[in-house]
Amino acid sequence: MPLSDSRYALLVIDMINDFEFSTGKELYPFALEAGKQISILKEKLKAKNIPIIYVNDNYGKWQSDFRHLVSHCVEQPVLGQPIAKMMCPNKEDYFILKPQFSGFFATPLDLLLTHLKVDTLILTGVTGNMCVLFTANDAYMREYKLIIPSDCIASETVDINDQSLQTMKKVLKADIRPSTELFK
Amino acid sequence: MPLSDSRYALLVIDMINDFEFSTGKELYPFALEAGKQISILKEKLKAKNIPIIYVNDNYGKWQSDFRHLVSHCVEQPVLGQPIAKMMCPNKEDYFILKPQFSGFFATPLDLLLTHLKVDTLILTGVTGNMCVLFTANDAYMREYKLIIPSDCIASETVDINDQSLQTMKKVLKADIRPSTELFK
Amino acid sequence: MPLSDSRYALLVIDMINDFEFSTGKELYPFALEAGKQISILKEKLKAKNIPIIYVNDNYGKWQSDFRHLVSHCVEQPVLGQPIAKMMCPNKEDYFILKPQFSGFFATPLDLLLTHLKVDTLILTGVTGNMCVLFTANDAYMREYKLIIPSDCIASETVDINDQSLQTMKKVLKADIRPSTELFK
Amino acid sequence: MPLSDSRYALLVIDMINDFEFSTGKELYPFALEAGKQISILKEKLKAKNIPIIYVNDNYGKWQSDFRHLVSHCVEQPVLGQPIAKMMCPNKEDYFILKPQFSGFFATPLDLLLTHLKVDTLILTGVTGNMCVLFTANDAYMREYKLIIPSDCIASETVDINDQSLQTMKKVLKADIRPSTELFK
Repeated sequence: MPLSDSRYALLVIDMINDFEFSTGKELYPFALEAGKQISILKEKLKAKNIPIIYVNDNYGKWQSDFRHLVSHCVEQPVLGQPIAKMMCPNKEDYFILKPQFSGFFATPLDLLLTHLKVDTLILTGVTGNMCVLFTANDAYMREYKLIIPSDCIASETVDINDQSLQTMKKVLKADIRPSTELFK
Repeated sequence: MPLSDSRYALLVIDMINDFEFSTGKELYPFALEAGKQISILKEKLKAKNIPIIYVNDNYGKWQSDFRHLVSHCVEQPVLGQPIAKMMCPNKEDYFILKPQFSGFFATPLDLLLTHLKVDTLILTGVTGNMCVLFTANDAYMREYKLIIPSDCIASETVDINDQSLQTMKKVLKADIRPSTELFK
Repeated sequence: MPLSDSRYALLVIDMINDFEFSTGKELYPFALEAGKQISILKEKLKAKNIPIIYVNDNYGKWQSDFRHLVSHCVEQPVLGQPIAKMMCPNKEDYFILKPQFSGFFATPLDLLLTHLKVDTLILTGVTGNMCVLFTANDAYMREYKLIIPSDCIASETVDINDQSLQTMKKVLKADIRPSTELFK
Repeated sequence: MPLSDSRYALLVIDMINDFEFSTGKELYPFALEAGKQISILKEKLKAKNIPIIYVNDNYGKWQSDFRHLVSHCVEQPVLGQPIAKMMCPNKEDYFILKPQFSGFFATPLDLLLTHLKVDTLILTGVTGNMCVLFTANDAYMREYKLIIPSDCIASETVDINDQSLQTMKKVLKADIRPSTELFK
């Protein structure tokens, strides 16, 4: 596959999440399925030394850390606990706290990617029509190439997810093949 | 004093710091003096419910948290330990990790200040001609009013510190009266 | 209507345009219809002293001016000439040249809106699923309220336009009533 | 000289200027001297196909163009007319309108430099302790290397100019040799 000249980073968006919000129950089963695929993909990419970046909501607060959010989701009996346990970040993983939908808005993400010499982003996580899409849009305007594996993003409904994938394929020229077909 | 219509925030810049860098020894005694004044000022401002924001270098990394930096400086026998112990952040304090000299560059600081409805920044910390000055410049361009108490910033030499204060007074119209004359 | 406490600005996106690009022919008739409605809306808003901001592509160049683009479209026999003539900017109108889809990306638009004390944007122009949508997304993250009159935006097909309007209504909470129902 | 692996751009800051402001008279003679050197340097760099970027204040307006500013300064009997005539931009030159001191703040300058594949900026213009310094600071944080020829910047007094040059040499590691020693 023609991915060989790129420098990649895997972005895992809003998966470390208690899912304790109004539409969390609808989203959760889809997120769990995506989470399983992301976990497999993450291991494959780690073996190739591709950096993993957790991009997470700071919930309008600047008083708590990402590590606290991880503890909250892993140790408390929240809806998102199984996902958080499954894809718990490692010491060498990066994280970005975002105050808004897009991982690029008012964060050092672009700077981090420049330092890592990344030109192609592999976007995964939730939700396909909100934080993933907004991050993808901003990435496209900053001229990153996009891989958004169709089995690694989730939204509240299958239709919304599919529509968002089609939009990202068409408008942002994203490669949306499932993760099983990538990095073989 | 004519400060009554403003909404303030206290920024404490790079004081949670191990000072284990080449010029740390020169800077440390001045930083310690400034730290004592900042601590007194911080208590005065806390009593008025003015938010405290720690603005700290992330040392080019996005893999560790501010709370880890605090632990490192408070618990390890580093040069900066006494200062870190003296001005250890509280639970309700905010923090911003900055990848560069200015607290505004590639961070959510401006967004946080907007949410807190702040229009006047009280800048303190180290060093007067680097991170404090760069943060002050960026604050000025974003139309924040500036209070930079002369006894609450430190640089490697008294001359450099004084020159920087005069620049911030002249170019940025900063109020540079010592903290003892403020918020009485 | 409950719009009375807001400060508005009308954004006219990419309508001063020669339409001499590959899909310009498909887009043109829809743009012309939208242009007629935008022109009527513009007069209504001007009578209320609401600022008009032309947001236009700089086509990757930083060597020519907006006024040159206006001349090019008004004076040359280009496909977009009738629209450019119909909605030619006035002296007191503002303009922003954008290097990317979003009017906010790498431009002073946010700063201009802050100076004008605007909290609600009326978005119009082309295309509904590209520059209008990207600008709307960025506006939403900056906490502007959005009015996107359904008869004042255009895309290459009616379906794409409708889908984009529904997305902006749902995700960005935009008011998408037609312009004829607004500012009566 | 070890400049050969870099891609340069010459920035000419605020020289297209009517100088009709309170301290314009003090600044003007220094600016005229600097302008002569910048003009010579500009020709030398143009011969090497190095891009020239005029960075100019938009005076808080987004209603007039750079070309109008050029006309205003070249055709009206303003104090800055001789400088504007001497260093009038050519068709192929770039320009950036800045709403604040720094050429990077709320402008597409960084994007333009990325497109031009520039890694080293040659900063010239006025004033040494305001727009030149603020632009230099922002350039340094974005990791551009800096050449700031001492004879090509001007401030209201020689002392202020020298102090600013020394600061940029020390803090920003700028090469401040006079233009006569560069690009031989």
